[in-house]
Amino acid sequence: MVHGGLYSTATARVLACLNEKELDHEFVPIDMRAGEHKKEPFISLNPFGQVPALEDGDLKLFESRAITRYITHNYADNGVQLIPHDPKKMAIVGVGMEVEAHHYDPPASKLTWELGVKPLMGMVADESIVKEQEAQLGKVLDVYESGLAHSKYLCGDTFTLADLHHLPTLDYLMNTRAKAVFDTRPHVSAWVADIMARPAWQKVVAMRNNH
Amino acid sequence: MVHGGLYSTATARVLACLNEKELDHEFVPIDMRAGEHKKEPFISLNPFGQVPALEDGDLKLFESRAITRYITHNYADNGVQLIPHDPKKMAIVGVGMEVEAHHYDPPASKLTWELGVKPLMGMVADESIVKEQEAQLGKVLDVYESGLAHSKYLCGDTFTLADLHHLPTLDYLMNTRAKAVFDTRPHVSAWVADIMARPAWQKVVAMRNNH
Repeated sequence: MVHGGLYSTATARVLACLNEKELDHEFVPIDMRAGEHKKEPFISLNPFGQVPALEDGDLKLFESRAITRYITHNYADNGVQLIPHDPKKMAIVGVGMEVEAHHYDPPASKLTWELGVKPLMGMVADESIVKEQEAQLGKVLDVYESGLAHSKYLCGDTFTLADLHHLPTLDYLMNTRAKAVFDTRPHVSAWVADIMARPAWQKVVAMRNNH
Repeated sequence: MVHGGLYSTATARVLACLNEKELDHEFVPIDMRAGEHKKEPFISLNPFGQVPALEDGDLKLFESRAITRYITHNYADNGVQLIPHDPKKMAIVGVGMEVEAHHYDPPASKLTWELGVKPLMGMVADESIVKEQEAQLGKVLDVYESGLAHSKYLCGDTFTLADLHHLPTLDYLMNTRAKAVFDTRPHVSAWVADIMARPAWQKVVAMRNNH
């Protein structure tokens, strides 16, 4: 059972993982505009008051990247194998996941907020933040571009959790002017098109659009 | 072989883990004042130009938390078991590690810079940043305080990688006025004293002090 918000990037990350693993799941919407994530009963699932949270039997988890790791590890035999068994290959995917969390996500999330969310709320993007974060994102994508010249995905020739973790912010940014930061890098651009077309991700998009 | 800087919190995180696992290792100092981390040969180990990096045979890794996970997983039978084998307990430790990285570390690292590093470099701390980050850290420690009232460590009654990841910033902050943010919370304060006293961590401190 996933508790979350359909417009939350962290929630979408978990749903994409469940779809890749072909795991049936119940979705419990949290009304974030009503502040439900800051109150009981949700706050008992995550004392930091952020979506999503997962309940799997008596196990209660939060933090999207911890949830996807658990799903991948505990349901290793279901669906797509998102983390290799070989310890060295697993370690390389681990590096890719840390790079996503600490290098890619900070500028990508700030740009998602400025260019993707603020306009939906009738607010105006802060141009100086956008410029700074586009420059920062560009530096990260330069490193990705070099790597993707040699392998189809970030951590080798198969799709892994390191790629998957990028999808929710990518999806927002492809509908903003920040798309140009990706489009100007051909290997990055091909990688974005490839991973966004995955049926597991398209199911998440359809769920949101049909809401 | 660990490439890093003795004053780098990320390097200290990896060294603490190697000591807990009782793994012999060679330390290769990177002269960060000379910018060695931004040049070859280091930049081939980490294209983002940040310490530390690990070489284990032909495997090359960077990002401290990916390195500690690899060490813990690949050398599961050495020294202290820092991640439980049981998938559900492992998942709980995974949440603790994400909380460290995304909630605790941002204010802790900013305070380490303002109060721990800037004075060493003859610079003055920015009082408004310090106040804001102390408040932010306090909120995270409130959640820790509630948890530590029920278990000795962050993810249960044994020391895990989730606790270990806090040590390098804790060590800096205990020598600054930010110590008060910890001291005013008794369970947090007892936890800090316990984990800092671990011989594996004291070996890292001694290595730095004897340099």
